[in-house]
Amino acid sequence: MKKFMNGAASMVAESLEGFVSAHDSMVMFGAGRKFVRRRHLAPGKVAIISGGGAGHEPMHVGFVGHGMLDAACTGHIFTSPNPDQVIAAIAETDTGAGCLLIVKNYDGDVMNFEMAAETVSGRHRIETVIVSDDVAAQGAARRTGRRGVAGTLIVEKMLGAAAEAGSDLAGLKALGDRLSTQIRTMGVALSGVTVPDTARATFTLEPDEMEVGVGIHGEPGLYRQKIADADTIASMICNAILADMGQHNSDQALLLVNGFGGTPTPELYLIYNVARRLFEASGIRIARSLVGTYVTSLDMAGLSVTLSLLDEETLHLWDAPVLTAALRWLRHDPTNFGTEDVHLS
Amino acid sequence: MKKFMNGAASMVAESLEGFVSAHDSMVMFGAGRKFVRRRHLAPGKVAIISGGGAGHEPMHVGFVGHGMLDAACTGHIFTSPNPDQVIAAIAETDTGAGCLLIVKNYDGDVMNFEMAAETVSGRHRIETVIVSDDVAAQGAARRTGRRGVAGTLIVEKMLGAAAEAGSDLAGLKALGDRLSTQIRTMGVALSGVTVPDTARATFTLEPDEMEVGVGIHGEPGLYRQKIADADTIASMICNAILADMGQHNSDQALLLVNGFGGTPTPELYLIYNVARRLFEASGIRIARSLVGTYVTSLDMAGLSVTLSLLDEETLHLWDAPVLTAALRWLRHDPTNFGTEDVHLS
Repeated sequence: MKKFMNGAASMVAESLEGFVSAHDSMVMFGAGRKFVRRRHLAPGKVAIISGGGAGHEPMHVGFVGHGMLDAACTGHIFTSPNPDQVIAAIAETDTGAGCLLIVKNYDGDVMNFEMAAETVSGRHRIETVIVSDDVAAQGAARRTGRRGVAGTLIVEKMLGAAAEAGSDLAGLKALGDRLSTQIRTMGVALSGVTVPDTARATFTLEPDEMEVGVGIHGEPGLYRQKIADADTIASMICNAILADMGQHNSDQALLLVNGFGGTPTPELYLIYNVARRLFEASGIRIARSLVGTYVTSLDMAGLSVTLSLLDEETLHLWDAPVLTAALRWLRHDPTNFGTEDVHLS
Repeated sequence: MKKFMNGAASMVAESLEGFVSAHDSMVMFGAGRKFVRRRHLAPGKVAIISGGGAGHEPMHVGFVGHGMLDAACTGHIFTSPNPDQVIAAIAETDTGAGCLLIVKNYDGDVMNFEMAAETVSGRHRIETVIVSDDVAAQGAARRTGRRGVAGTLIVEKMLGAAAEAGSDLAGLKALGDRLSTQIRTMGVALSGVTVPDTARATFTLEPDEMEVGVGIHGEPGLYRQKIADADTIASMICNAILADMGQHNSDQALLLVNGFGGTPTPELYLIYNVARRLFEASGIRIARSLVGTYVTSLDMAGLSVTLSLLDEETLHLWDAPVLTAALRWLRHDPTNFGTEDVHLS
């Protein structure tokens, strides 16, 4: 295991300090450096707070900013933030309209965000949306529910846009729960992941193997098989997503191809190219696309494909302006884009 | 070597198809798919054209768009595009004000862009800017000049902004040559890189080694040594850059920490944090920052640090609006940023 760090114990704090320093017009540390927050809060807007273990960057700190999160709480690597961090974030970012917590479905995260919500329940109005977009969870994992993986980005983007547009807490909670039924993700890994503290890989693959149905914490996936070509891998993933999605009325979707940290961007675009064709052949028009390394598992080689069905409302929320370190646009899909439109600064 | 691909021969073309499809409001293929161009050309503007081997993505195709490149020509992996591609890009994007070619200093690239420029010299006005920002080249490499590495991003951004603002061809050429004296980069690798065609790593490091002074084609660096902690590595790089930069009058700079493809973003921010402090301790204020994976060497683990001295003109060019797949802002460092400023779509 080789990493650019001074020591495993300090690496998250040092990296966050660099992040805040690089983006200091947009974000700042909250009290006691317990979380990263938007520098300029919008009074009267519901605060959107998320977080989780470190090791998934740019999620969540990279999504703090206008149109997305108000605060992100980062734990140690692959470890939930503690309730104290979440409580501090709530206290500092609730400007009167309450807080929506967006939590990936892992026991530690769910427990700690829940404890925080209970602790402040007398002083703040809180709702929680659990993200569980991973189609691959089964067996024991299936009983505690699907994991929250790359679809979290979409949930945070859309709820952030809705909050920015003035949705109230109850409306955001209802929207978040509805999004859960429309977003599906599946991942494949070509390597395990080395956690700095233990300096051990979480699983080891032979040079000709891949792990299918992985999450973002280096946990083993559904099964292991010989590596296949890109057409075969994309087809496997897309079929699993479509089968899991079942009957639906949507004819358009957002397609997100997300790298896990160690996979070069050109490979993501290559898989995107195949997946887009496959989904479109099944009758789903890919109306919006996002390809990049956003929801990671440290330096794991691998990727996930996320399909998010779109209706008029969610399309509008996706297109709404966003200005964060990792995700930024003023309007998406600017089909009439001309030079006269961008001299806005 | 494990990659998401259908075969080494088709992977660049398949990936480019995905890229164009994902960003089709912004870019399109040029004639014969020989290059990727901006969908909406600006008549009367000098066309900015760059390119190089594949394997460095998002550079250059990710930089095609408003405020940066008009066209990018992509060769096979780590292989220059051929003159025919460059000629086609010139013919299609020159709207009357001529073309500026931005070329990284490698023999193959320089030769092929030069041949293209000579071939069209009767029909188009052409100037060429050679990027050579790598402080690490020495010995034989030093005699043919420094390599062009991550500083290329800065040259393309600034020249793109100047062209957008109406600079003529002679002005852009002079600016480009001046930029060369103000940008310095040094890179360190924790792994070699596996080229898909050969399926072999270009160099192999022991688990406790790092390669210092690497470029972006997997070529060996200046020397190999035991891996050090982040403070030591950043200090080595910053000192080499400052020593090479020599006497200068600038008191502010842009700091770019660039990942080579296999290094997670948090490690880049960690190195950024140290490097920023070191440069500021030496009297250079870091006025602008960019941290991310922009100029890559396939999946190589490693990073480079680039210092670009800023004056009033270059600061203004850096801040100018840019809208490409990989780099986008309407204005940088929005210190007075408030919610009222972004509802622009």
